[in-house]
Amino acid sequence: MSTMQALAKLHPAPGFELIQTEIPVPGPREVLIKVAAASICGTDVHIYRWDRWSQGRIKPPLVVGHEFAGEIVALGEQVRPGEPQVGDFVSAESHIVCGVCQQCKLGNAHICPNTRIIGVDTDGCYAEYITIPVENAWKNPQDIPLPVASLQENFGNSVHTVSAVDVRAKTVLITGCGPAGLMSIPVARAFGAEIIVVTDLSPYRLDLARKVGADLALNPQHNEVTSQAQDAVRDKGFDVLLEMSGAPQALFQGLSLLKPGGEAALLGLAPNVVDGFDLNNLVIMKGVTVHGIAGRRLWENWYQGRALLASGVVDLGPIITHEFPLSRWHEAIEAMASGKSGKIVMYPGA
Amino acid sequence: MSTMQALAKLHPAPGFELIQTEIPVPGPREVLIKVAAASICGTDVHIYRWDRWSQGRIKPPLVVGHEFAGEIVALGEQVRPGEPQVGDFVSAESHIVCGVCQQCKLGNAHICPNTRIIGVDTDGCYAEYITIPVENAWKNPQDIPLPVASLQENFGNSVHTVSAVDVRAKTVLITGCGPAGLMSIPVARAFGAEIIVVTDLSPYRLDLARKVGADLALNPQHNEVTSQAQDAVRDKGFDVLLEMSGAPQALFQGLSLLKPGGEAALLGLAPNVVDGFDLNNLVIMKGVTVHGIAGRRLWENWYQGRALLASGVVDLGPIITHEFPLSRWHEAIEAMASGKSGKIVMYPGA
Amino acid sequence: MSTMQALAKLHPAPGFELIQTEIPVPGPREVLIKVAAASICGTDVHIYRWDRWSQGRIKPPLVVGHEFAGEIVALGEQVRPGEPQVGDFVSAESHIVCGVCQQCKLGNAHICPNTRIIGVDTDGCYAEYITIPVENAWKNPQDIPLPVASLQENFGNSVHTVSAVDVRAKTVLITGCGPAGLMSIPVARAFGAEIIVVTDLSPYRLDLARKVGADLALNPQHNEVTSQAQDAVRDKGFDVLLEMSGAPQALFQGLSLLKPGGEAALLGLAPNVVDGFDLNNLVIMKGVTVHGIAGRRLWENWYQGRALLASGVVDLGPIITHEFPLSRWHEAIEAMASGKSGKIVMYPGA
Amino acid sequence: MSTMQALAKLHPAPGFELIQTEIPVPGPREVLIKVAAASICGTDVHIYRWDRWSQGRIKPPLVVGHEFAGEIVALGEQVRPGEPQVGDFVSAESHIVCGVCQQCKLGNAHICPNTRIIGVDTDGCYAEYITIPVENAWKNPQDIPLPVASLQENFGNSVHTVSAVDVRAKTVLITGCGPAGLMSIPVARAFGAEIIVVTDLSPYRLDLARKVGADLALNPQHNEVTSQAQDAVRDKGFDVLLEMSGAPQALFQGLSLLKPGGEAALLGLAPNVVDGFDLNNLVIMKGVTVHGIAGRRLWENWYQGRALLASGVVDLGPIITHEFPLSRWHEAIEAMASGKSGKIVMYPGA
Repeated sequence: MSTMQALAKLHPAPGFELIQTEIPVPGPREVLIKVAAASICGTDVHIYRWDRWSQGRIKPPLVVGHEFAGEIVALGEQVRPGEPQVGDFVSAESHIVCGVCQQCKLGNAHICPNTRIIGVDTDGCYAEYITIPVENAWKNPQDIPLPVASLQENFGNSVHTVSAVDVRAKTVLITGCGPAGLMSIPVARAFGAEIIVVTDLSPYRLDLARKVGADLALNPQHNEVTSQAQDAVRDKGFDVLLEMSGAPQALFQGLSLLKPGGEAALLGLAPNVVDGFDLNNLVIMKGVTVHGIAGRRLWENWYQGRALLASGVVDLGPIITHEFPLSRWHEAIEAMASGKSGKIVMYPGA
Repeated sequence: MSTMQALAKLHPAPGFELIQTEIPVPGPREVLIKVAAASICGTDVHIYRWDRWSQGRIKPPLVVGHEFAGEIVALGEQVRPGEPQVGDFVSAESHIVCGVCQQCKLGNAHICPNTRIIGVDTDGCYAEYITIPVENAWKNPQDIPLPVASLQENFGNSVHTVSAVDVRAKTVLITGCGPAGLMSIPVARAFGAEIIVVTDLSPYRLDLARKVGADLALNPQHNEVTSQAQDAVRDKGFDVLLEMSGAPQALFQGLSLLKPGGEAALLGLAPNVVDGFDLNNLVIMKGVTVHGIAGRRLWENWYQGRALLASGVVDLGPIITHEFPLSRWHEAIEAMASGKSGKIVMYPGA
Repeated sequence: MSTMQALAKLHPAPGFELIQTEIPVPGPREVLIKVAAASICGTDVHIYRWDRWSQGRIKPPLVVGHEFAGEIVALGEQVRPGEPQVGDFVSAESHIVCGVCQQCKLGNAHICPNTRIIGVDTDGCYAEYITIPVENAWKNPQDIPLPVASLQENFGNSVHTVSAVDVRAKTVLITGCGPAGLMSIPVARAFGAEIIVVTDLSPYRLDLARKVGADLALNPQHNEVTSQAQDAVRDKGFDVLLEMSGAPQALFQGLSLLKPGGEAALLGLAPNVVDGFDLNNLVIMKGVTVHGIAGRRLWENWYQGRALLASGVVDLGPIITHEFPLSRWHEAIEAMASGKSGKIVMYPGA
Repeated sequence: MSTMQALAKLHPAPGFELIQTEIPVPGPREVLIKVAAASICGTDVHIYRWDRWSQGRIKPPLVVGHEFAGEIVALGEQVRPGEPQVGDFVSAESHIVCGVCQQCKLGNAHICPNTRIIGVDTDGCYAEYITIPVENAWKNPQDIPLPVASLQENFGNSVHTVSAVDVRAKTVLITGCGPAGLMSIPVARAFGAEIIVVTDLSPYRLDLARKVGADLALNPQHNEVTSQAQDAVRDKGFDVLLEMSGAPQALFQGLSLLKPGGEAALLGLAPNVVDGFDLNNLVIMKGVTVHGIAGRRLWENWYQGRALLASGVVDLGPIITHEFPLSRWHEAIEAMASGKSGKIVMYPGA
């Protein structure tokens, strides 16, 4: 058995293909992992559809996927004691950073300008086996549920976004209830948010948001968001905005609902450059602080995420809405693309 | 002697008029100040020109002006011991705040939503006398030069902007060299900036910027700003952007020159809403933090400003380019409007 | 009816006396409050016992008590619109600050060096009526339970202590389970603590600590605190220490259990100067940060406390162990002094 | 040429010996450096004298010394592109950290509990050649003076101490003017300190302190420190204390001179546990924050130090009071031990 099943982008065109390919061999500082579960990210859908970003970034052939958990089954010869070992159940940070640039040396590796991404720039995890640098492996506690273990990298984005601001005893508005927005709800609650109001255009996602703890879930197409959101909080306005949708209208509405001196953390990426941004009134004269959020802080957000899951304060179970064997990858990608899903987990070898 | 000279907006139309009017009487919690010097702010030019903002905000008749220094000559009956007294040489915070809203109670009075502004919402300082709430009076040290004392309120904006970020041993880009930008140069130097690069369209202002300590002063119309600015700093990029111009192009260029993880503080107000803002690449994926700056922190920025001036670390002398008696107000306003000026100080009663 | 019942220290000696005295008249900037409930602080026990601190500070005759809630029934003539009014149900900040010193002007009124304290330096709340400066009145929401409303000032100390550090997804050790320590448990939980271990010498208090959410409650007289506490947390050590006991042994043990880089917040006052403090190993070489905590931040900790109580995240009910009419004040003070109590509330006029 | 001159501790007893020993061979992830200059740290004097700490930590035979600069002349086979290379002029971080513990993974490697120290736990730099892990090499700019390059590791302690607090426009008291205290003076100035007052028992060191910018240098044996220090600053007290002496009396006096809400950073190690510490009045009720400072932040303090030196804002020249060839090591150590010195630099091979 020297080959494995893998989901790959073989040609510069829409689509993926399930292939048999060589099991990779770990380099000196790499580990070989038998993938037990892999979850789908919006990025994977972009690559599947072969959008403009993908055309500029992806070099086929490439095994895709970057969120996963599995067991280490082999080590490169330069892996050292104290580092993850064979038999460890690990998840992976998807950002492979250079370690020598100023950002890396300052403890800000999440914004290393030399970052390569698993499943984007190197072969990914929608496969029975994957090799990654040993520095990217994160050892899991024994009792973490497998599907939850697979989505910690994505969860780390939500932890990063919430922890970038101070939500303690604060009122929080979350615009956008895709997976990152949904996962930020229980994190904001765990870190002390008093009232959490969320918005999204999808009734399916608003229902999920309520399930994981949103106090009020509003649909801009059916609700008077501004007045209803304001009614939900004292002191006329929100302390914190978490922008997880990428929609300029959501950003503008969210900032307008902030109190003077409020904080906003922006994770959602806009489809284009943003027009009509009233910076004077929404940011400057209001004394608002805006935090751009990229990736996860290595490894602060992983430690935080582990603690949140281990203590049971955050339960990501309700957010995992679909599970498939890797062989049914097409249904999985379609479910993700439909918008009627939370997180979707696939099981290679099944 | 019960009347005084004052510069006023008498009608809802362009222009000011020099009038004789009653000397005001302090209310219970107010002080009467004999104005010794008053400096001109860009806002005064807006009111003079009667632009759209002025038309919506100003209710003539109104004595204008809000930056000044002078001596307290009378007190309202509820002014208490420990507060400023007759004979004190004071400057004034121009923001009259409510003291009872959440922002005021949290120590964030600079963004009190009930703020009224001297010379905008109440009679101002281009006059021989002015009354202000005792809470707005700031007692000066004896040895501060009079013209410098008059512009501390405006200086506080620059102190606020620089102190909102961490410039210690950092490379700093300042876009815009109007008075607020100019004053931020020595503050950034005093607080530890390693290299300060500035941009402006005016050769006059770039010269002033060099005089007060800019390491490199670039004109986007004549210099390759991006390459020259990058050449001036190690590590490929700036740590900090101070945006003092309000020009969207300056904001975009400044953000593009920031390192990942950099900080930007925005004081300059844009003439309109901002179009074409590439939030993804300039803020979010770069992990940049953007601070909107409004007014001055009460009273942190005043204490800081006093210390910077008292120690001689910051010398605002070179930034004061023109001085006039109040009677020559027209020349003063024209000099301010010309762009060929730093700060301009007028002397009432002269 | 121009007299009222009040509990007072009449002579410079141990004891209190229940007296009839004049109902106070509010000064120009004061409000008269009909006290509905008043809770007991350890300070009151010190004054009762007439310890050395009391002998140096208290000037009899004095009505004692400083934690309370009640209704405003009259206003001084200089109380303004927007400030608390007749009919408002209020609690009180016990620190009467000067408003004009540097600390007050910087938003740090909690450490104003000119602070006078209600029930210590001015007549207090163990009475049917009390006058306080209008600035010290905090308007309560309608639905807050009366006994909880009365102890918010003390609760603010706990909120201050916990919010001075970062407990988000952190392991927290709390040494000392008197009222302030007990109240800090649900606050630490609400703000994101993963694991909370507490210590105290009193089994009664350890039971209360478990009731309000401690994960592990240890008695240094019966438990191997160091090993049991370490076993309760991963990563060999605690992220945060909240020292609420004032006992040097607790401080030393707590600091020794901190991880390198940990944070400690100290609220408990030691009975004497501290001997045998191994600063090198417990603080300096470990890179620990120690926060001295005084009073409550005005008004940040009040806003936070209100939000924590309003959302139901913090329930102080189990901490209120005794309630008495004021006439049974002696039983109340004895219960407080016994150590077998949480918070004790008295009802004047009952 | 396969042997080199080196200064070593050969036996568990006082003294050093100048020996000929093998030139070390770099391990896979190490670099071999030809030492150009090495400076003396107080730790070296402790090892020389064979004090209690040394007896517990040092395992002879050991080449001593940990502050140095030199040229890389050979690489281990696993050193990678982008890392320091042959021909680079480098200095060294003396802390060899594990890279896998929680502190290292959180960007707090300066407090890695598995730290080994060059010249303490591994052969040091008082030699013609040294091998160190490539991760510990810091590439210098070409134009840095050699003796200054050699003491950057120690300088980093001072940068760490000053940058741990906010000295911008603040009044700063520095207790202790040994090398670390002396170097902190120009750093505090560069980062915005308004007034810097220092104390030391040595007139020699107080003179050096004045040379590098102290506004007032006081000797507790001859000056009324409290009153003279208070007179030097407005607002009755200091904002910041930097404790660099390790003397408990200095710590207590420094804390007593702090304003309420002040900050203290402690780098000086006390000779013993500290007795008589009035925590209540000096820290807790005053709301003071105390930062224990260990080592240097990797690599933030190195970047800051480089910027301070490169811009010329900090000139360490006057602090380097003695220079010797390594062969005259005995005079160098004696000068260091005498207290009549700043930094002392030795030149191996000379």
